Amino acid sequence: MMDRPLQLKTLLWRAERLFGHKQIITRRDDGYRRYTYAEFGKRVRRLTDALNRLGVRTGDRVGTLGWNTDQHYEAYFAVPCMGAVLHTINIRLSPDQIGYVIEHAGDSVLLVSPEQLPMLEQIRDRLTNVKAVVVFGDGPPPTTALGPVYGYEELLADADEEIEFPDVDEDSPAGMCYTSGTTGEPKGVVYSHRSTVLHALILCLQGSIGVAERETYLLVTPMSHVNSWGMPYACALQGASLALPGTQPRPHHYLEIIEHARVSVCVAAVTVGMLMRQELESGRQSYVLDSLHTLWLGGQAPPIGEIRWWQQAHGVHVCQGWGMTEASPLLTFTTLTSQFTDLDDEGKFRLLGTQGKPMPLVEIKLVDDHGKELPWDGKHAGEILARSPWVARAYYHDTRSQDSFAGGWFHTGDVGVIDQNGYLSLVDRVKDLIKSGGEWISSVDLENALMGHPEVREAAVVAAPDPVWLERPIAIVATNSPVASDDLTEFLREKFPKFWLPDRFVFVDEVPKTGVGKFDKKLLRQQIAAGNNHSTDKTP
Amino acid sequence: MMDRPLQLKTLLWRAERLFGHKQIITRRDDGYRRYTYAEFGKRVRRLTDALNRLGVRTGDRVGTLGWNTDQHYEAYFAVPCMGAVLHTINIRLSPDQIGYVIEHAGDSVLLVSPEQLPMLEQIRDRLTNVKAVVVFGDGPPPTTALGPVYGYEELLADADEEIEFPDVDEDSPAGMCYTSGTTGEPKGVVYSHRSTVLHALILCLQGSIGVAERETYLLVTPMSHVNSWGMPYACALQGASLALPGTQPRPHHYLEIIEHARVSVCVAAVTVGMLMRQELESGRQSYVLDSLHTLWLGGQAPPIGEIRWWQQAHGVHVCQGWGMTEASPLLTFTTLTSQFTDLDDEGKFRLLGTQGKPMPLVEIKLVDDHGKELPWDGKHAGEILARSPWVARAYYHDTRSQDSFAGGWFHTGDVGVIDQNGYLSLVDRVKDLIKSGGEWISSVDLENALMGHPEVREAAVVAAPDPVWLERPIAIVATNSPVASDDLTEFLREKFPKFWLPDRFVFVDEVPKTGVGKFDKKLLRQQIAAGNNHSTDKTP
Ligand SMILES: Nc1ncnc2c1ncn2[C@@H]1O[C@H](COP(=O)(O)OP(=O)(O)OP(=O)(O)O)[C@@H](O)[C@H]1O
Ligand SMILES: Nc1ncnc2c1ncn2[C@@H]1O[C@H](COP(=O)(O)OP(=O)(O)OP(=O)(O)O)[C@@H](O)[C@H]1O
Ligand SMILES: [Mg+2]
Ligand SMILES: [Mg+2]
Repeated sequence: MMDRPLQLKTLLWRAERLFGHKQIITRRDDGYRRYTYAEFGKRVRRLTDALNRLGVRTGDRVGTLGWNTDQHYEAYFAVPCMGAVLHTINIRLSPDQIGYVIEHAGDSVLLVSPEQLPMLEQIRDRLTNVKAVVVFGDGPPPTTALGPVYGYEELLADADEEIEFPDVDEDSPAGMCYTSGTTGEPKGVVYSHRSTVLHALILCLQGSIGVAERETYLLVTPMSHVNSWGMPYACALQGASLALPGTQPRPHHYLEIIEHARVSVCVAAVTVGMLMRQELESGRQSYVLDSLHTLWLGGQAPPIGEIRWWQQAHGVHVCQGWGMTEASPLLTFTTLTSQFTDLDDEGKFRLLGTQGKPMPLVEIKLVDDHGKELPWDGKHAGEILARSPWVARAYYHDTRSQDSFAGGWFHTGDVGVIDQNGYLSLVDRVKDLIKSGGEWISSVDLENALMGHPEVREAAVVAAPDPVWLERPIAIVATNSPVASDDLTEFLREKFPKFWLPDRFVFVDEVPKTGVGKFDKKLLRQQIAAGNNHSTDKTP
Repeated sequence: MMDRPLQLKTLLWRAERLFGHKQIITRRDDGYRRYTYAEFGKRVRRLTDALNRLGVRTGDRVGTLGWNTDQHYEAYFAVPCMGAVLHTINIRLSPDQIGYVIEHAGDSVLLVSPEQLPMLEQIRDRLTNVKAVVVFGDGPPPTTALGPVYGYEELLADADEEIEFPDVDEDSPAGMCYTSGTTGEPKGVVYSHRSTVLHALILCLQGSIGVAERETYLLVTPMSHVNSWGMPYACALQGASLALPGTQPRPHHYLEIIEHARVSVCVAAVTVGMLMRQELESGRQSYVLDSLHTLWLGGQAPPIGEIRWWQQAHGVHVCQGWGMTEASPLLTFTTLTSQFTDLDDEGKFRLLGTQGKPMPLVEIKLVDDHGKELPWDGKHAGEILARSPWVARAYYHDTRSQDSFAGGWFHTGDVGVIDQNGYLSLVDRVKDLIKSGGEWISSVDLENALMGHPEVREAAVVAAPDPVWLERPIAIVATNSPVASDDLTEFLREKFPKFWLPDRFVFVDEVPKTGVGKFDKKLLRQQIAAGNNHSTDKTP
């Protein structure tokens, strides 16, 4: 067979040549901007030429601090197709973490959203490797104390739209991203052309989200983290229409775009899905959502109550994928296989509440504390190990966590059970599991049960140190109206063994979240250990 | 990223572990045999162990002369997963061609259908490299003058079902197949694990045939040629149910299986689709076909009349792929993209009559006689060049046709036009185009128009040498009831320029076909040149 490399320029070629008329729609402050994949392709070439003139060479890292916009999307192709490495920086990390990752990745050029400039000025001493800063947006760049700064459109205006992309080795780096830092400092992962192309193909398969030309996808999940779950590449591959929520979007913006662009599939973090629901339930504004049929939620487990609500209130099918930065991210996906066609709705919701089956070319296994393989019987819980052409073999220049890759498998740090059919149900993160008197308690199960209570908006459960039991569960909850702790305890009592019931309820306005919108349990554990709990044992 | 190789055993792992309960149904002389992917997996391991005991080693070629059966399907995994090479021999080639390919491939073991034994005895002197012959079927092997002969089930009974498959290099050979020999002697093509896995993924994408778990596929297209278009691998990957028509099937058998196994998608050569239609129209037997929604036809262009008939008579959507042995085989596929949603039926049939758009990771271009690239304007016709990770880089040990691979592109020998949207319409094979007085005439267009005549069952058009015009078209037609040549000429007159109208009509009972059921134009040209035309200028 020909040794044609798997490379991202082939995907761009498709978008331009076969689907040149299809559109990309981006929310702007003053409305929406639409253009076609044909125009997109020309602008990608211009950006490549401009970066080349700024001195970007094969293998150089180009950092982005951007929202989900057309310009950011252009960088998704321009940077890897020229042989450089797209380092998407999670725009919601702390300034200190951002400084760390820019320095650690050695970014030579940064493409940044204008409101990030003051933050970059703060961490200026960590940008020693950065030769130029390019500012997204339409106008000339704002004045800043940072080194050479260029306006994105100025740069593109002077550039060539006819350049040819080189062939690259499929194993060469195309992108990189750091983990969310939910459990510690962010760790870098490098994606290759090969892994990115294979992952994009997988997203287009029947049985995964199945990206198709006829659909319009709204990408809410950030392009600044794990390539927006690879969706930008899959959409180009299929010529699917794309809707991007633009700069600093709020939940109502997502709903407005769904209506405006007639979005059919929305991809978002679980917590963002919950915010969209709150916006809808508030009745502040009315939206026409009849085009929307699928909501892909991920990053943490969507509570079954959410899955049910979207189906019943809007006829929207909720699915989820399980994955992580180290895995590009997708490892499993929930599909209802044909044997479940006749399940009743609640049975279907329960299945959709699992993390689904492994994707093609993904192998998973379940192991106990000693690394011994456990059976797929729906009972044994263990850490999940995975391997696949799109799973990292190591962290980027990092000596931490080498154990995570021992024996040719990635040790995901997630604990789950797998049933006979290969459906995975996550129990918890290894680090979040609560060990009480020698028995495990799943924080995730408690959270999902609590969020099934009609008045509970958000719930996180973490371990507090305990002199007798070693650890005991504490629940941090945000409610719509005052609820007594005892009521919540009663609500849980019927569902769990007695020793699972939280010792305390801490009521808050909002559960603190990490940069990508997950419940920040590391912070919560610290607060609980330090005794900083805003209010306990009664509603505020 | 991990350097996990793309290898076929990963597909088998999926079928066994995730879809172990799904079924494979094979037609037998005495009914149907059904078993699950879980049983299939065990039998695959047994076959691997048995072949290993027969001395098959990494890289050895194992030839098969088999129909579409469960046992043949077992070989599809057992042979490549052990690191050997599955050489599927087209069961419909002539004995001489079969001798040629067995010798040329150097097959060390043959797995053969029992009725092939007498033919093999005939060509015994060409089997010098063959160490053992294994006979498909249930019983002990028939007595034969051939060397050591084993019964398939006997061998499996003694073998181990627990063996582990080795990891293989993804570029190592997994299979091989020879071209149909439509235009000359068959040429060998070697498929790698990588190309076979990628091709299987492509078949599962939205926008191609989109193999899905919920469907039941009937594979009529032979497993003895180009891996039944890769469908056996794609079905295992998705855990789709599979129906196999078994030994020496007739058109009514296909329809019976569709009814029995509730087949939803049928994959067949164009001429077989036409035979199924004839069987249905004959009214000899009645069939319940309500489960069937899609018919994938290929190998030659399906006439629009066929596409229309299946839609109108049975609500069956006809699609087609264009490809070839050298390309595993799929290069393009017809899907109606969203811009055509509002087309009327005839418009849709016309689009479905094109060869569609290139698959992901397939690049095509159109060139003139001097290799200069031609525009995609729906007007310029040229030879189509293709490249992709699943296109051959050369023929196997063959010095012929090296030009076919010049410049890193495969020169397909097919002539087509491509429109602005990337839809390819084949005009003809380079070798079948008719050059009359310095102008090209498309044999395919004339054939499809003729087959649109209500009484014409089959039509092939070939060039006859002509002293004045160099070449002139001659039509060979099979009709349902007597038709006069003049009627056919009148029928064509409104559709084509005058110089396209065939000089003569030759009426036959059936157009001669090649081993894979294509019109045998090489033979027809020889017959015409030799003046062997059964009857001309009037119906028989
Ligand atoms: N569908 C899901 N259901 C439950 N949990 C999920 C799901 N998808 C992802 N997760 C959780 O998110 C994790 C992956 O998140 P990500 O790679 O963004 O960073 P992180 O693990 O949160 O941060 P860090 O590794 O830096 O601590 C998974 O390991 C898993 O715990
Ligand atoms: N959908 C289609 N429409 C029209 N023609 C097709 C289609 N699919 C395949 N073909 C024809 O079939 C050819 C590929 O067939 P295959 O590889 O089986 O052997 P062959 O080309 O017929 O034989 P040989 O190469 O030995 O002469 C293509 O080159 C093309 O001419
Ligand atoms: Mg993590
Ligand atoms: Mg050919």
